[in-house]
Amino acid sequence: MNTRIYNARILTMNGKPDLIEGEIRIEGDTITYVGDGSHAQTGAGENPPVWDREIDAGGNMIMPGFKNAHTHSAMTFLRSFADDMPLQDWLFDHIFPMEAKLIPEHILWFSKLAIMEYLTSGITANLDMYFFPEQIAQASIETGFRTVMSCGINDFGAPIETLEENYLRFNGYHDLISYKLGVHAEYTCSEELLKKASEYVHKYQAPFYTHLAETEKEVRECRERHGGLSPVRYLEELGLFDYGGAQFHCVHMDDDDIDVFVKHGLYAVTNPGSNTKLASGICRTTDLLNAGVLMAIGTDGPSSNNCLDFFREMFLVTGLGKLRENDAAAVPAEEVLKMATTGGALAMGLTDCDCLAPGKKADLIMIDLHQPNMQPIYNPVKNLVYSGSKQNVIMTMVAGRVLYENGQFDIGVAPDEVYAKVQELIERDFT
Amino acid sequence: MNTRIYNARILTMNGKPDLIEGEIRIEGDTITYVGDGSHAQTGAGENPPVWDREIDAGGNMIMPGFKNAHTHSAMTFLRSFADDMPLQDWLFDHIFPMEAKLIPEHILWFSKLAIMEYLTSGITANLDMYFFPEQIAQASIETGFRTVMSCGINDFGAPIETLEENYLRFNGYHDLISYKLGVHAEYTCSEELLKKASEYVHKYQAPFYTHLAETEKEVRECRERHGGLSPVRYLEELGLFDYGGAQFHCVHMDDDDIDVFVKHGLYAVTNPGSNTKLASGICRTTDLLNAGVLMAIGTDGPSSNNCLDFFREMFLVTGLGKLRENDAAAVPAEEVLKMATTGGALAMGLTDCDCLAPGKKADLIMIDLHQPNMQPIYNPVKNLVYSGSKQNVIMTMVAGRVLYENGQFDIGVAPDEVYAKVQELIERDFT
Repeated sequence: MNTRIYNARILTMNGKPDLIEGEIRIEGDTITYVGDGSHAQTGAGENPPVWDREIDAGGNMIMPGFKNAHTHSAMTFLRSFADDMPLQDWLFDHIFPMEAKLIPEHILWFSKLAIMEYLTSGITANLDMYFFPEQIAQASIETGFRTVMSCGINDFGAPIETLEENYLRFNGYHDLISYKLGVHAEYTCSEELLKKASEYVHKYQAPFYTHLAETEKEVRECRERHGGLSPVRYLEELGLFDYGGAQFHCVHMDDDDIDVFVKHGLYAVTNPGSNTKLASGICRTTDLLNAGVLMAIGTDGPSSNNCLDFFREMFLVTGLGKLRENDAAAVPAEEVLKMATTGGALAMGLTDCDCLAPGKKADLIMIDLHQPNMQPIYNPVKNLVYSGSKQNVIMTMVAGRVLYENGQFDIGVAPDEVYAKVQELIERDFT
Repeated sequence: MNTRIYNARILTMNGKPDLIEGEIRIEGDTITYVGDGSHAQTGAGENPPVWDREIDAGGNMIMPGFKNAHTHSAMTFLRSFADDMPLQDWLFDHIFPMEAKLIPEHILWFSKLAIMEYLTSGITANLDMYFFPEQIAQASIETGFRTVMSCGINDFGAPIETLEENYLRFNGYHDLISYKLGVHAEYTCSEELLKKASEYVHKYQAPFYTHLAETEKEVRECRERHGGLSPVRYLEELGLFDYGGAQFHCVHMDDDDIDVFVKHGLYAVTNPGSNTKLASGICRTTDLLNAGVLMAIGTDGPSSNNCLDFFREMFLVTGLGKLRENDAAAVPAEEVLKMATTGGALAMGLTDCDCLAPGKKADLIMIDLHQPNMQPIYNPVKNLVYSGSKQNVIMTMVAGRVLYENGQFDIGVAPDEVYAKVQELIERDFT
């Protein structure tokens, strides 16, 4: 499939958020040209390709898709099931018992529902930590979505050897799929398990991913358990950060913790929607950015957030940053946009999905500027972060394939079939 | 125009947020029936009316439209014009100089752009404080939108007598239009002006509306100017609250201020999007609700927010409430929904737009539950507040007329004409 999109404002995120007026050309799953359209030659072959589709963007914006750098997709089945309660009660009394009933069939359908929601919000890849990686991968491959899985192993489930097996099995499994070493969290893992995870980190010289410093309680109890060490410092001592990685939440961090992130080049993945709804706290975004910590954004799962909408997350990243610092200039829009696109891609190891340039994967979206919330057009980047909405997403392309366009899905299954199947499984197995 | 909407889940907001499965009937601008559809007779006349339109809601949700209880609609012309700076600099150095150039023609078009955005977000009425009420009214009447105007008079513009003239002129002007006594804010009004405003409040036994306790600076400087009185207590002393009203922002309130609200039955209109973006602070929503203060929600203007989206506001009301109290159970979804609909209507004096019941105005919206963010359907009210989006708004009806449906507007002017005219006026007069 070769596609040419012309008459576009292109936000490449290649270095800085400047807009190019012109066109973008896609051959197969790869971008072959971004520019003003004056060159017929794309560089991919001797002759200009035959276009399967030529799209007039009508002056609308083309930009990299958002990268959802922390989620638990299949938790769609628990959306609006247990709201308005603290994280630990919510997790241990309501979520874990329901999750204990999960079987592979659930994951396939619950993940597809999440993928549909990602597409409506312009999200083109996710970093998904959940059970049954085979079905997570299947959901993504069948719908055409890009997924990096991160292992969420803990003391209560599969043995630690599963981590290595999955790592070897799912890296190289499919173009759309990869797998990262990780564990659920310090507070659900024994030291023995963490040490074994660290062995794999060193064996494969691989980055490490986990929930980290999400609640004040987590930090306090870790310090009690481990001779005063914060979770960040404790995992560092175990060598888990020796090859970098990305850590989820990063709310309750002291300055020493921030230093650890800088030293190991760790990505901090902020999850403001979830941290807000669970009253976990506000991330020190300004301090992290000032220290030079690389950042990305995640929605977290649809049971805590409850919504998989990157426009809400982007506004919260800047808004909560401003409130925290008591400074309306804190965490400007351009910084948020970098976190949501380039930062996310790099945190997830998707080094060929970070911006729009020849040779990069064609994971991109079209933003409708011809809606009232995007008018007038002084500054499309500020519009995007401050007044943008998922309703402005009129096309989502992953690996060169249009999966969502003008409210319609092309994901190999009808939306109503997904809704009906999800509801049927919930009624059959969870009520 | 008589319309029957059947096969709907109806959230009446008439007492409590229960869902009725059935139908709603509208004759002219008024609701004549809400129920299970078993009665052909509507009660409006001897015979069942002839339906101009019968709409199969397909199981989707019908609910009262959101009431935007504080905004400055025509500030659309300054969206993304001056972001990432503190309120006082933003207002005095950037906004006021631009506003000084405004002429009536601007207001007509800039307001129409805002009304379009309201409709996409399911907002059916606004409380609009801005210049040139004649053109504000014209924009609403021409598009079919419902607007309550509140006077924003201060020391730098029209004489105080304008307040009375407008009050008499615009109440009774048109079914869609009404007008409230008010001033811009304590910090822009002399005591002489406020005393004159208080005379009108008493002369007409009318409620009073103003910006109040928005920033810490405002409260501190008011105390310096007025013998230690907070803005709330100062305006109370002047008698401005003797007939109630609604006050905008209400962020920096002490317990005495809350007592004043209770004593006078004042509505607190919270504006979390604007307060977040300008880093003004977080409203004491839980304390206000616990004290029994009546509450409503406003977007504020599109230059400070920057977006006129009630789904964002609703999530911020509960989310910021939870963060402020460090309690995930604070400000539950049901309470937010009441503020966004019934509370707003009553704060604005729209006593016939507060819920869906026979005799009430047909100001209502249809929420598409057949989108991924609204699935599964455990609890549609939680879904609405926690994962709902303006994309779920597939119909917005004001006074019995469908003004927005499936992304299309029926407001007497083409969207592209509004966008082009707004851009043309900005380029002609503001750059």
